[in-house]
Amino acid sequence: MPIPDSVLAELQSLLGARLSVTQVDRDQHGASESYHSAPPPDAVAWPETTEEVSAILRLCNAHLVPVIGWGTGTSLEGHALAVKGGITLDMSRMNKVLEIRAEDMQVSIQPGLTREELNTELRATGLFFPVDPGANASLGGMAATRASGTTAVRYGTMRDNVLALEVVLADGRVMRTGTRAAKSSAGYDLTALMVGSEGTLGIITELTLRLHGQPEKIAAAVCAFPTLEGAVDCVTATIQSGIPMARIEFIDEVSVRAFNSYAKRDFPEQPHLLIEFNGSEASVAADAESFGALAEEFGGQGFQWAATPEERNALWKMRHQAYPAQLSVRPGSTAMVTDICVPMSKLAEAVAAAHEDIAADGMVGPILGHVGDGNFHSALLVEPGNEDELKRAKALARRMAERALAVGGTISGEHGVGIGKRALMAEEHGEAWAVMGVIKAALDPNNILNPGKLVPDRG
Amino acid sequence: MPIPDSVLAELQSLLGARLSVTQVDRDQHGASESYHSAPPPDAVAWPETTEEVSAILRLCNAHLVPVIGWGTGTSLEGHALAVKGGITLDMSRMNKVLEIRAEDMQVSIQPGLTREELNTELRATGLFFPVDPGANASLGGMAATRASGTTAVRYGTMRDNVLALEVVLADGRVMRTGTRAAKSSAGYDLTALMVGSEGTLGIITELTLRLHGQPEKIAAAVCAFPTLEGAVDCVTATIQSGIPMARIEFIDEVSVRAFNSYAKRDFPEQPHLLIEFNGSEASVAADAESFGALAEEFGGQGFQWAATPEERNALWKMRHQAYPAQLSVRPGSTAMVTDICVPMSKLAEAVAAAHEDIAADGMVGPILGHVGDGNFHSALLVEPGNEDELKRAKALARRMAERALAVGGTISGEHGVGIGKRALMAEEHGEAWAVMGVIKAALDPNNILNPGKLVPDRG
Ligand SMILES: Cc1cc2nc3c(=O)[nH]c(=O)nc-3n(C[C@H](O)[C@H](O)[C@H](O)COP(=O)(O)OP(=O)(O)OC[C@H]3O[C@@H](n4cnc5c(N)ncnc54)[C@H](O)[C@@H]3O)c2cc1C
Ligand SMILES: Cc1cc2nc3c(=O)[nH]c(=O)nc-3n(C[C@H](O)[C@H](O)[C@H](O)COP(=O)(O)OP(=O)(O)OC[C@H]3O[C@@H](n4cnc5c(N)ncnc54)[C@H](O)[C@@H]3O)c2cc1C
Repeated sequence: MPIPDSVLAELQSLLGARLSVTQVDRDQHGASESYHSAPPPDAVAWPETTEEVSAILRLCNAHLVPVIGWGTGTSLEGHALAVKGGITLDMSRMNKVLEIRAEDMQVSIQPGLTREELNTELRATGLFFPVDPGANASLGGMAATRASGTTAVRYGTMRDNVLALEVVLADGRVMRTGTRAAKSSAGYDLTALMVGSEGTLGIITELTLRLHGQPEKIAAAVCAFPTLEGAVDCVTATIQSGIPMARIEFIDEVSVRAFNSYAKRDFPEQPHLLIEFNGSEASVAADAESFGALAEEFGGQGFQWAATPEERNALWKMRHQAYPAQLSVRPGSTAMVTDICVPMSKLAEAVAAAHEDIAADGMVGPILGHVGDGNFHSALLVEPGNEDELKRAKALARRMAERALAVGGTISGEHGVGIGKRALMAEEHGEAWAVMGVIKAALDPNNILNPGKLVPDRG
Repeated sequence: MPIPDSVLAELQSLLGARLSVTQVDRDQHGASESYHSAPPPDAVAWPETTEEVSAILRLCNAHLVPVIGWGTGTSLEGHALAVKGGITLDMSRMNKVLEIRAEDMQVSIQPGLTREELNTELRATGLFFPVDPGANASLGGMAATRASGTTAVRYGTMRDNVLALEVVLADGRVMRTGTRAAKSSAGYDLTALMVGSEGTLGIITELTLRLHGQPEKIAAAVCAFPTLEGAVDCVTATIQSGIPMARIEFIDEVSVRAFNSYAKRDFPEQPHLLIEFNGSEASVAADAESFGALAEEFGGQGFQWAATPEERNALWKMRHQAYPAQLSVRPGSTAMVTDICVPMSKLAEAVAAAHEDIAADGMVGPILGHVGDGNFHSALLVEPGNEDELKRAKALARRMAERALAVGGTISGEHGVGIGKRALMAEEHGEAWAVMGVIKAALDPNNILNPGKLVPDRG
């Protein structure tokens, strides 16, 4: 159903040039980093204030026009595609740092601000925001997908680092959740309910985030292992031993080979761990020593250490550029990126099984991940339009997800549900998925907020 | 409205002697640790299985009979009182440890298990469950109130330490939320929604909890300060400097005097901090030294250190016995315990203002608290039945809450809403309180789960 002309006219009078129906703007907001696709939205709006977001939602709710939040569009399950048409709300103009409260280690920001922009603003304060999903995503989008990344093993995910939100509800009402206090028992945890709700319960217009002290010392290293099992078992042992890793990432030999050829480097084509320690000079040295001893036990060799930021970035390039490097293995392909997360004790078996399944199929699917949380990804490279490959990739992804569920894990460690994981939600959640639908229906009775995602179909 | 005889008969045939309508059982479950009171429930049930809880709820939902969860009844805002009559579900017979998964640092338990029972069971594993609300509460009750306590500054609250739940919904459906993975982005965070819902959204029948490694070394100390401001400013500076305190508690001179006379001790009658460090031998020594230097700056004197568990317990008795000691100042009184929590930078001013308000009124109201989180309590001692005193205490409590809200804090850091904090919910949450009501109505349309608590009145 196209947007009624009267609604478009009212939006235009509200937003002026910040409402667009041009093909180029619509197409830009109809694209996705993933293998998912859908027709573009009918219009794109760039609100600048909470009041504008509220007015847009009130109007769209009255006329049953879908509204889809958009941060930077880097989500990997087609989250921000306008599968039922409607208006995409591009939040990029709401990108201000509102208040840094260094003495409370907090910051209030608008949702369109990106993670890198925030950390640039914070540089002088001695504080930083740790959640790092690789992509330079918006903090609103990161909250909406409950993002995490390489540092979650130490600093937690968006769940742990969002203290309070301002949210515009489907009917335009503005709600504030949470407080600036470190904890609260005053009623339902609506902040946690909104974090991870993928734009289906409300549009986030302000976030209060926890900040952390920039560590006195950061040390990073890479280390090769003769076998996949050795590398992953080393991670499990490291976590169980309580060494406070700041990052501990696994990257398989296929990914290393891809990186070597992509970046003209010559890392040994073996599974690697990439690690980072944060702390005082003394604690970092002690942690590195403990880890070194463990790594040796599991066959780790060829440690390369980096102390300066430049060396660190060079060393970690293998991780930061993993995605383009992986894609370059098969030029023109897109990746179906899997995202299971399992209890630590099941990690080695889950990675090995994924590896074997992919090998048995013959598909290219390099594996890497935030193994300190039990979370890993395989990038299953498919040729766009090749239905057979897509089917095989989906079957592999489903098999991994089912294995994860069988050992008490989850179908998504950090990417979220969007379109791609919806078919697995009933399997993970059973009755709880229906309850998600009940909550959605109660808060968005007209189903205008990012319809067709996350929850079961209505009725 | 009394429970229909047919319902009682059906419950009796389901539960046998585990359903009681005797006055003594009803009175026991009509009592509260707080100044709140209400008529007792019409009946008390002791379920032993999830299936029984489900059958009870199905039946009560069909006949509009209120159901109130009951852990150990230690909540402080009348949470578990049957203000609309109905059946109290005493969970104490569902108190099994179901599975310890030491390699994943997790345990699955039933809700009636108490915190001390759990830690006794865990002793041999090298792991422990850190959340410690002073009272030996049930873990189901602790989850339901989003409890925390002295260790939250280091290990977080129930929000951070509950991974997954089994919950029986109002209509008897059984839902499982969360997984055994360290993180997940697969849909709404129903675990977080249930934690802190005070039995108004479902009855918790199983919990999966995060465990932590028993620290190699624990060191504890008490330290006196010449002024309240000095002590509290020292806390703020400590937290801001990032010293990883395991506990840091404030106790004012009125509380110290009360303890000295209660326990026949002779601590200097000055504000004190009670602190604890957890870690390795070396890290504890380093942390203690850093803290010592800060404390000296703020006038701290007369450090007393304890290394053995026995010495530690003796030293911390002042904190553990604070509540009975405070009550003993005025024999026969009950306490209205306030519970505000503010951003760290506002803590000193909040404690000082509370102190002055209480002094200006002339009421006895010793102050102590989990100051590392910005959370503190005053125990306003009122004579039962003395309406004037109760009114004054309520006015003082409201004033503190309003001061907390004015600086971005919360009306309840850890005790929850129950009956006592309901009048302040609109002030803290505004529109979000209405949203809590919408969620409650969607999940419990007949309003049978702990009615009259937490959310706005229906309709
Ligand atoms: C190379 C690469 C690596 C990645 N690595 C990681 C990783 O390590 N960890 C990880 O967690 N993710 C990772 N991702 C996925 C992605 O970066 C995250 O999901 C990120 O959080 C998306 O943020 P965004 O701003 O791009 O959101 P978008 O993609 O624009 O939107 C995501 C969802 O949030 C909603 N939304 C956006 N803004 C708002 C708002 N203000 N209010 C309400 N809803 C809103 C949208 O409607 C949509 O449902 C990666 C992606 C890429 C391309
Ligand atoms: C001396 C003293 C000190 C205290 N100190 C602290 C402190 O430092 N920190 C702190 O957080 N609290 C503290 N408390 C308050 C109290 O201990 C906590 O609120 C505790 O979590 C209550 O647990 P309980 O098992 O006694 O629950 P109850 O009082 O029995 O019930 C509390 C609420 O939870 C619900 N409930 C109970 N079990 C279930 C279940 N299985 N499913 C669903 N709902 C359920 C009840 O309906 C009720 O609404 C203190 C109390 C006392 C008396």
